[in-house]
Amino acid sequence: MPALEIARTSPNILNTVYQVRGAVYLAAQEREREGKEVIYTSVGNPHGLGQIPLTFLRQVLALCMAPFLLDDPAIADKFPADAILRAKEYLASVVSLGAYTDSRGAPLVRKQVAEFLERRDGLKSPGVDNIFLTDGASAAVRLGLQMLIRGTGFRDGILVPIPQYPLYSASIALLGGVLIPYELDEENEWGLSLDSIRTAIAKARNDFICPRGLVFINPGNPTGQQLTAEQLKGLVTICHEEDLCLLADEVYQDNVYGNARPFISARKVLGEMGGAAAEEVQLLTFHTTSKGALGECGLRGGVVELLNVPDDVVGQMYKLASINLSPNVPGQVALGVMVNPPAPGDVSYPLWAKERQAVLDSMGRRAAAITKALNALPGVSCVAAGSLYAFPSITLPARAIECAKEKGLVPDVFYCLALLDATGIATTPGSGFGQKDGTWHFRTTILPPEDKMDYFCQAISDFHLAFMDKYRGPCCGSVPGSKL
Amino acid sequence: MPALEIARTSPNILNTVYQVRGAVYLAAQEREREGKEVIYTSVGNPHGLGQIPLTFLRQVLALCMAPFLLDDPAIADKFPADAILRAKEYLASVVSLGAYTDSRGAPLVRKQVAEFLERRDGLKSPGVDNIFLTDGASAAVRLGLQMLIRGTGFRDGILVPIPQYPLYSASIALLGGVLIPYELDEENEWGLSLDSIRTAIAKARNDFICPRGLVFINPGNPTGQQLTAEQLKGLVTICHEEDLCLLADEVYQDNVYGNARPFISARKVLGEMGGAAAEEVQLLTFHTTSKGALGECGLRGGVVELLNVPDDVVGQMYKLASINLSPNVPGQVALGVMVNPPAPGDVSYPLWAKERQAVLDSMGRRAAAITKALNALPGVSCVAAGSLYAFPSITLPARAIECAKEKGLVPDVFYCLALLDATGIATTPGSGFGQKDGTWHFRTTILPPEDKMDYFCQAISDFHLAFMDKYRGPCCGSVPGSKL
Repeated sequence: MPALEIARTSPNILNTVYQVRGAVYLAAQEREREGKEVIYTSVGNPHGLGQIPLTFLRQVLALCMAPFLLDDPAIADKFPADAILRAKEYLASVVSLGAYTDSRGAPLVRKQVAEFLERRDGLKSPGVDNIFLTDGASAAVRLGLQMLIRGTGFRDGILVPIPQYPLYSASIALLGGVLIPYELDEENEWGLSLDSIRTAIAKARNDFICPRGLVFINPGNPTGQQLTAEQLKGLVTICHEEDLCLLADEVYQDNVYGNARPFISARKVLGEMGGAAAEEVQLLTFHTTSKGALGECGLRGGVVELLNVPDDVVGQMYKLASINLSPNVPGQVALGVMVNPPAPGDVSYPLWAKERQAVLDSMGRRAAAITKALNALPGVSCVAAGSLYAFPSITLPARAIECAKEKGLVPDVFYCLALLDATGIATTPGSGFGQKDGTWHFRTTILPPEDKMDYFCQAISDFHLAFMDKYRGPCCGSVPGSKL
Repeated sequence: MPALEIARTSPNILNTVYQVRGAVYLAAQEREREGKEVIYTSVGNPHGLGQIPLTFLRQVLALCMAPFLLDDPAIADKFPADAILRAKEYLASVVSLGAYTDSRGAPLVRKQVAEFLERRDGLKSPGVDNIFLTDGASAAVRLGLQMLIRGTGFRDGILVPIPQYPLYSASIALLGGVLIPYELDEENEWGLSLDSIRTAIAKARNDFICPRGLVFINPGNPTGQQLTAEQLKGLVTICHEEDLCLLADEVYQDNVYGNARPFISARKVLGEMGGAAAEEVQLLTFHTTSKGALGECGLRGGVVELLNVPDDVVGQMYKLASINLSPNVPGQVALGVMVNPPAPGDVSYPLWAKERQAVLDSMGRRAAAITKALNALPGVSCVAAGSLYAFPSITLPARAIECAKEKGLVPDVFYCLALLDATGIATTPGSGFGQKDGTWHFRTTILPPEDKMDYFCQAISDFHLAFMDKYRGPCCGSVPGSKL
């Protein structure tokens, strides 16, 4: 009887589901191994689909990585003065990208985060001791959840929007907590209903669950919507009344396009509310280098700021972070540049601003194109794409649902596998995020490059029409180009 | 009642102790804030104490970070051809350092790890599907322990050497497991006794603990010793008989100096044993970019290979890794270069070999100097320093122990705080690693630069003599230069 065997694996691990890299992703990998092309729209991974990094950030990082470049005038002349200055500044703080920093991250970067948050929100930060840099925002979220969930037996609950980003469901399951769902209203552009949250809390308490935290994702993932100041105020009020820690997943704050409602942070709302709430509501604010115009997912730069959290709890989080010694240092520097980018008047500002705007404009065009293409299809309805995602609802024919069940597949997994098989487009089934009973969705990113957008939209259309056609007819025909 | 409060924090978190960044480290930080110098020998962080990164590695990473350098002949001419080739090769595999890779890491790097392990040990690797790249080896160790420990209530036990690296005690406590200690024998150069391991297993079973894994650290941390092939064979045999997963922490495999016994991996021993053990013993092999001659701690490049682990369990680990999306990509590239460095005949080989040897030679000289200086002190006895550490035993005067108790401090913490206060040298108390009852130690790295080594040894000597002198006399006098 080996030590590592499924029969003796933690039930929490076995019960954890993580579909972003689930069945469809695994099938996509298999397809790649067979030498076929795959367009991964299952993960928000901009560089993976050809997005170019912002030049200034990479200049700073390259100089930090190879400080000997700074000593060679022939090379140093090729870099703008502000990138050189910035690299020297970070190196003076961290010594080397190869040195552990403090387990919360380099003090200089944490200071830059504090200043950024204060500038953005007009609300003072408790300062560097309450700011933790992490290997990606996912690690920061896990750290927060770990502090809130005491594990199996305690029935600590976390309110999570449905649909949600499955980092939450997976981490809560792993920690032995209980996910308390509150539904977003697709009919109302994925709007948030404070009443439904209050109902979810009451029901949870009635089920002997102890609600400890409330997660919101704004702009949404997978749903892309922006919350209003009024809704954020409502969330703060609920957290205040119900003693919940508010977890503000605001990693898509720069991914707002066109006429969409502008991003407002929970921190800003909290500050403007003032009074007891501003001093008492515990707020964890998350941010990352992975999204926005940077899209630097692979650098794993994440951060969380803790507001109104007592020092002894911060100390326990520091201890947890310490076991990991140090977040990766290139990611820290990237985060520092992100929150403190070139400013008007700096040598690198024009290029930075131009590149940044070009990325966001292009994303806006792609979001609009995908939304339009999806809404043109019969049985598909898509709230305007935002963040990095479109999350269309698909009305599946009864025979498709029947066929899926015969194959032991959730119907939207069945649909996404067929889409992959027919087109090479890897998406994530709605069931991985949670969805209202009886509805089916899939999530695609808006990241396929613009020159492939026509093909991409056309391929989805062609597939969808063929799929609908097939399952209108009798079962077990074949979708053109698909094995399913 | 706020959500985040100590009274409602997980008991496993509260019970976790992590002294590498404990009381002495926190006091050192405070001292730095007061503007005083601190020499951090509490953490094995070579670049933090001035070690220079190996040029070739940083050339490859800088080119990967700023691919536009490759397009500019004026710059590209400044880089050796093999660094350019290597950067292009990694970029072809990962697309961008800013793109998520597969959650186990980039296939190219995992392939290079497999080839390295096969070359090193003459034993076939199960291949890339069984190799996980991680943000530092600590994350890899946690992943392994997570698969073995089912949590509070199950009493899953992990055998850990005492003294140990506290990553193990901390992670086991956090996961709700039980640490089963087995003592290394200081009298016998921190030798490993198979009998004491068997006794520890029997005792654990008698206490209704279910032993699931056995950790060894070779070369040792904090103890620096090398295991013999015979001892490793014994460990494999015990694991085979007792159904334990063997966790091989071999991150210091390149940190072997002078006349010390050469490093032998558990993988190699397993392969040479052959038979049922070679096919059945589950072995997790850990490695990192943080130690050896690279010392690239801040890049957080870690890896684990899983031998004889069933595919369904590997699948569960893959799911866990997926929740984190991707290990940081610069760290992955660094690990790739580490396991596949320039070879004889390559343009960069002479410089790589020279720099690498210079680092290791210097470490060897420093290890010898520290060992000698410590052994010259009354009441101090130090087995030859190895890995990155010296772990001297200190016979503390009874009055020092009494004074420590009066202040509510563990005696070796008291000693290390006094050392910090008098000299600015931050070490880690032996109690953070575990030690035989009634003995006291501290751990220092061997990393202070050679030009500061005389000062470093002298400062410890002066302090120690004054400390011993003081506590020979009546209590509550003052150590010169110390507040304690």
